[in-house]
Amino acid sequence: MDSLTPVTLSKTEALAARYGTAEIPPAGPWNPIIASLLDHRSVRGYRPDAPPEGTLETLVAAASSAATSSNLQTWSVISVRDPAKLAVLAEIAGGQKHIQQCPIFLVWLADVSRNERLGQDEGTVLEGMPYLETFLVAAIDAALASQNAVVAAESLGLSTVYIGALRNDVVRVAETLGLPPGVVGVFGLCVGYAADAAKAEVKPRLPQATVLHHDTYDHGAEPAQRAAYDVLMNDFSRRNEMAADTWTARVINRIGTMKALRGRDRLSAAIRSLGFPLR
Amino acid sequence: MDSLTPVTLSKTEALAARYGTAEIPPAGPWNPIIASLLDHRSVRGYRPDAPPEGTLETLVAAASSAATSSNLQTWSVISVRDPAKLAVLAEIAGGQKHIQQCPIFLVWLADVSRNERLGQDEGTVLEGMPYLETFLVAAIDAALASQNAVVAAESLGLSTVYIGALRNDVVRVAETLGLPPGVVGVFGLCVGYAADAAKAEVKPRLPQATVLHHDTYDHGAEPAQRAAYDVLMNDFSRRNEMAADTWTARVINRIGTMKALRGRDRLSAAIRSLGFPLR
Repeated sequence: MDSLTPVTLSKTEALAARYGTAEIPPAGPWNPIIASLLDHRSVRGYRPDAPPEGTLETLVAAASSAATSSNLQTWSVISVRDPAKLAVLAEIAGGQKHIQQCPIFLVWLADVSRNERLGQDEGTVLEGMPYLETFLVAAIDAALASQNAVVAAESLGLSTVYIGALRNDVVRVAETLGLPPGVVGVFGLCVGYAADAAKAEVKPRLPQATVLHHDTYDHGAEPAQRAAYDVLMNDFSRRNEMAADTWTARVINRIGTMKALRGRDRLSAAIRSLGFPLR
Repeated sequence: MDSLTPVTLSKTEALAARYGTAEIPPAGPWNPIIASLLDHRSVRGYRPDAPPEGTLETLVAAASSAATSSNLQTWSVISVRDPAKLAVLAEIAGGQKHIQQCPIFLVWLADVSRNERLGQDEGTVLEGMPYLETFLVAAIDAALASQNAVVAAESLGLSTVYIGALRNDVVRVAETLGLPPGVVGVFGLCVGYAADAAKAEVKPRLPQATVLHHDTYDHGAEPAQRAAYDVLMNDFSRRNEMAADTWTARVINRIGTMKALRGRDRLSAAIRSLGFPLR
């Protein structure tokens, strides 16, 4: 058995990096898997070298091991290597070059078409199909599967980045990959070895007290927590050569305007046109 | 650093268990993290003993380390210990006793309310809020976070099971947990030590060739693959003291009728009523 790519930070150091501050939550048990999870960062630049033979199959076996609602397994994944298709996908994603650069590019699919075919073959109408619930189950199945693939990849010293921008035009994604009705690409995933310049610091997250509630949702302390997090994120972005900016400013920039949605205001209509009534 | 809970199967054994057959995919690299991922099984019976102090905080730190779309962090999680609330949640989920039995029960939230409050505090209308895209991002954020928590829990020798049945009545879940508008419970998660009788075999999944496509979606071999998987699943369910049944029969049973949806045909209206226009 290959060894884990070691994470050398202590528990306290890893938590301080993840939360960007010495004020860390009182975490308990710890082990190399948890250390690897805490060490995640998204990487947007890749070396050309391919990972070992069978890496794709290892990642998909990990993905298939995730929970899936009622064992319906309403997800699939496409490994894209065709340069022409990668170019189209990169264009849909607003010119993200790493889609063409990484040695493994995966498109994760919410896929109820398998059930549709099963129903047709068995001569049964599946009454549950046209509902939002069924699409949501498929999207969540795809997310649980892909996250297992991410964890597996990072444990092997590979880096990853999710490409939500495929949702800028899910109809063109479907055309490019020959998707039948009842299948939608919910996001992409780059996998490969990080280019040296591309591996930034671990990005600090909101304090645990902001996202973890006990018995009842309570956001009373949120304004102070957000102000402190804005300072952390401003410092983080300056250190990592992005424009210095607070979290508040980035949130407003990302969802403040219709332009920033990059066409995703049409996602509902597009998903319906791909065979999900979303009733 | 605590050690991993060891998984003793070899790569070949683990893949054979996961796919329920000796016809396994040509997986390559392997390590203890991947072995732990492959060993997943959902557990519906728990011992009463609590995990070590700080386990909840460790799991949430792992969750916060997952990727999140544009760092929006549109998820939250509620740890529920109040017996009265656990009883209501178990009832919503159709009487799943393990919700009241497990020492850690989490409700994972698609949460755009934090952004709503941010926009209000800053005097800015966030134009991207009312779209299906924004809800979908939040649901996927919650799924990526929760799957990291699952991986962390299982690495510590704990077992888990997702509770999608909270979606039977998301409005009552919101009332029970005091959720503000813009927050919906997308699923629950039990965490704890498996009762001896509750730890079944690893459940076989569809063949890798069924879910993994190359450049183009291709389901030509699916009928034969499904027939073979039906045999495997029939055997698996007989061995594990469920009613013997094929995968095909279980899919039809789960989504074939309106009754089987258990109210989730109203999910779209319910989520809208909780403050997501889903435009």
